Amino acid sequence: MFEIFDMTGTFAFAVSGALVALNKRMDTFGIFIIAFVTAVGGGTLRDVLIGKTPVSWMTDLLNVYIIFGATVFTILFRNYLKYLSKSLFLFDTIGLGVFTLLGIKAGLSVEISAVACVGLGTMTGSFGGVIRDILCNEIPVIFRKEVYATACILGGVFYFVAQYLGANTLVIDIGTALTVILVRLLAVKFRLQLPVVYKN
Amino acid sequence: MFEIFDMTGTFAFAVSGALVALNKRMDTFGIFIIAFVTAVGGGTLRDVLIGKTPVSWMTDLLNVYIIFGATVFTILFRNYLKYLSKSLFLFDTIGLGVFTLLGIKAGLSVEISAVACVGLGTMTGSFGGVIRDILCNEIPVIFRKEVYATACILGGVFYFVAQYLGANTLVIDIGTALTVILVRLLAVKFRLQLPVVYKN
Amino acid sequence: MFEIFDMTGTFAFAVSGALVALNKRMDTFGIFIIAFVTAVGGGTLRDVLIGKTPVSWMTDLLNVYIIFGATVFTILFRNYLKYLSKSLFLFDTIGLGVFTLLGIKAGLSVEISAVACVGLGTMTGSFGGVIRDILCNEIPVIFRKEVYATACILGGVFYFVAQYLGANTLVIDIGTALTVILVRLLAVKFRLQLPVVYKN
Repeated sequence: MFEIFDMTGTFAFAVSGALVALNKRMDTFGIFIIAFVTAVGGGTLRDVLIGKTPVSWMTDLLNVYIIFGATVFTILFRNYLKYLSKSLFLFDTIGLGVFTLLGIKAGLSVEISAVACVGLGTMTGSFGGVIRDILCNEIPVIFRKEVYATACILGGVFYFVAQYLGANTLVIDIGTALTVILVRLLAVKFRLQLPVVYKN
Repeated sequence: MFEIFDMTGTFAFAVSGALVALNKRMDTFGIFIIAFVTAVGGGTLRDVLIGKTPVSWMTDLLNVYIIFGATVFTILFRNYLKYLSKSLFLFDTIGLGVFTLLGIKAGLSVEISAVACVGLGTMTGSFGGVIRDILCNEIPVIFRKEVYATACILGGVFYFVAQYLGANTLVIDIGTALTVILVRLLAVKFRLQLPVVYKN
Repeated sequence: MFEIFDMTGTFAFAVSGALVALNKRMDTFGIFIIAFVTAVGGGTLRDVLIGKTPVSWMTDLLNVYIIFGATVFTILFRNYLKYLSKSLFLFDTIGLGVFTLLGIKAGLSVEISAVACVGLGTMTGSFGGVIRDILCNEIPVIFRKEVYATACILGGVFYFVAQYLGANTLVIDIGTALTVILVRLLAVKFRLQLPVVYKN
């Protein structure tokens, strides 16, 4: 039932990657690759770390086609995407919530502890953007100014607290994704940031 | 039968890595490591993504020795390699063709789809250079101006079209590697590049 | 019996990562992540390459707590850590020795050759720092001026020479870690570096 949101998130992640690549003057292949790693990087890292191979995008090509479509879309409408920035941000945030949930569930499927599951969910949600930034020779944006991983972590905390309290699966799943989404939306709306620590 | 070409490609990839590291003023260990990841990075990523572990270079040390030899060769003859640049480019291109073929075959061995196999072949051929550039703090060159991955993809397309048409294995294998090699040679000769897309 | 040293090394590696992240003005989450990858990056790469999944930090959370503690410690005492630099350097070096030993033993457990084991031990010891530097957009320091990997390699050579000579396990293990530690301490004390090669 999360598939439609998963696909939406994949599309939005791919567009975000393609836009960064465009701004770096990469060629069309480079744009596709950056879109691809942004969208599947988190899930691929998750699969590799828990030993679920061949990794997901190899066995289910739907994401590959969505990413291809997102790349073409981004290239064609590159000068108009600024008018869609709110929608894209919303899709991206929905994707973050769903990816985090999928990462937590993948962790549970190999019977690792709650803390490790939250870590795995956070990676699934945020690592694609980290790879995107590394390939584009930037310090990853989530380490500097985005309340991005924090949203994933709070979603993970919701998951295990709700589970501990005996909530049913559907409530846990939807609540987890919604927690991630709301935290990020509120953080962006109110310009909340994690503190930066300065040395003397 | 592709072993001699595989070794040639490993040598050429290692030299290309060592040269980049030399130009970055790395120390001798750094030069060896960059040569190593350039030569085995693509195959290692392939093995990890399909779950073939321990990865290849651990179980077959021949490549390690070739890379060590290539590093010593590059350091000793560093001031004369410009006279060999055409041969090195040819070796590198042969390696690209063979690595792509090996990646496709590895994908088939774990029964993933044709599209995923072409992706895996492309990664096997081109990802070593991506890691090299990341470690040297550069935006990977194949995202910017090389018809490199495109050659791998066209080789992969040849593989599955030829298979679909019922060609015998030897023809498919040689044709695939040759397609990669010819596309790259022609692209370099005629200065073909993928289009770069500009924003207004 | 190496556990206390393993923990000490994890702490020191995490502090070194947190300090680099602090100097890059990352936010508190970024500081934790860089501390985390610096401390577990080498072991995670090792586990992935030999197929030991889920990787170690997922199944044993002790390291996660140590890294969390190290991050808090670094943030609180950031202006005083310069007075601890000698202790931290010593801990870091002890960690390097123990991590190298653990990497070699992990390699033996999957029956790869001595040369591959030495490579795996070196990666376990030094790759966390490489990931730290990549995420912080720097050329990895060990490729430029640290006798770091060299110490790991010499430790690995000690391991297999001692084993070949029939030494008992305890002597081999302690000797290996001590070799790494002494080589690095001496190299830093006498400012030894690997040669850098210049081109005409």
